[in-house]
Amino acid sequence: MPQNISPGPRDERGVLSARILTAARDAFAETGWAGTTIRAVARAADVDPALVYHYFGSKEALLGAATTPPQRWLESVAETWLTPVDQLGSALLRLMLDAWADEEIGSFLRAVLLTAAHEQSTREKLRLVVERSLMGVSQLGTDERDRMLRSGLISSQIIGLAMMRYVWQIEPVASLSNDELVTAIAPNLQHYVEGDLGRG
Amino acid sequence: MPQNISPGPRDERGVLSARILTAARDAFAETGWAGTTIRAVARAADVDPALVYHYFGSKEALLGAATTPPQRWLESVAETWLTPVDQLGSALLRLMLDAWADEEIGSFLRAVLLTAAHEQSTREKLRLVVERSLMGVSQLGTDERDRMLRSGLISSQIIGLAMMRYVWQIEPVASLSNDELVTAIAPNLQHYVEGDLGRG
Repeated sequence: MPQNISPGPRDERGVLSARILTAARDAFAETGWAGTTIRAVARAADVDPALVYHYFGSKEALLGAATTPPQRWLESVAETWLTPVDQLGSALLRLMLDAWADEEIGSFLRAVLLTAAHEQSTREKLRLVVERSLMGVSQLGTDERDRMLRSGLISSQIIGLAMMRYVWQIEPVASLSNDELVTAIAPNLQHYVEGDLGRG
Repeated sequence: MPQNISPGPRDERGVLSARILTAARDAFAETGWAGTTIRAVARAADVDPALVYHYFGSKEALLGAATTPPQRWLESVAETWLTPVDQLGSALLRLMLDAWADEEIGSFLRAVLLTAAHEQSTREKLRLVVERSLMGVSQLGTDERDRMLRSGLISSQIIGLAMMRYVWQIEPVASLSNDELVTAIAPNLQHYVEGDLGRG
């Protein structure tokens, strides 16, 4: 968010730009880059389109802000990777389930996943989000290649589950409880964490 | 594809409509519903836009045709489900890897996965594709709910892998060999096929 623009009291600016950001995440997720207009985002946020330009500068910059990981999210991911290795499978899964239930982080994840389907620049950003937050800070494996392989496989299961449960809402996965999912899926994540993946 | 339109020799019609369909799948996958025009599809297929209308009728019908499962795909899925249960994990994984390597089926899968990100109607269609081809014909589990749960979990891993490997091309998953992937992932799919998922 721009630092050097001050059209009103500081508090009001924060509230309005957060509202615009939420509307932008929903709009990009639902209608993609090409289908999203500043005007529609402004209408959903109940502000004047000029204010969106004033705060964010351009549609490109708005997409950039909408798909930038919230700091809280990066911190909770880094913290989760410190879980003892024998409980890491279920800890990572619960991290993801909690993140999607969080209004701000859930709408960020949804925006990145869905916009990444169509925008090359967002696809690059998703790659960074996955590499940095899901894979990059992990401490797994015997060497760098093993570490990235294990993290990548963990990501593949977590992302597939998120698509099925939250984006496409395919039953029965969409309506299982968190505990049921952890019971069913955590052993598989744990296999990726410390199991034999056949690479010697 | 329409049956009752005949603007040229039968063979030419088949070739042209297949070329239009391939271009349409690529366009919907890359630029989404809102970003795709009949004109752009026609240009990519090197035909006149009027011919696209003539064969498919409308942009809606073109999307419908582009995201309809090829018969070959449905048949190979049904056949794979007949694999002995103790080899089903690796058989399902190889089915998916082969499908993405196939030009026609790969472009169909890509179009459905990516367009489903933005279009409610395609999301419904994806749900049907997943339910019918990945889940619906399975013979797993002790009852209907157990069968759908196992099939849904299998789908979550297969779809997440497809997103990482083919759509977002995140390393090292994107460049592993098929054999490496089967060694690493098939045991997890096998857990969903016949393992204890904690539901009694």
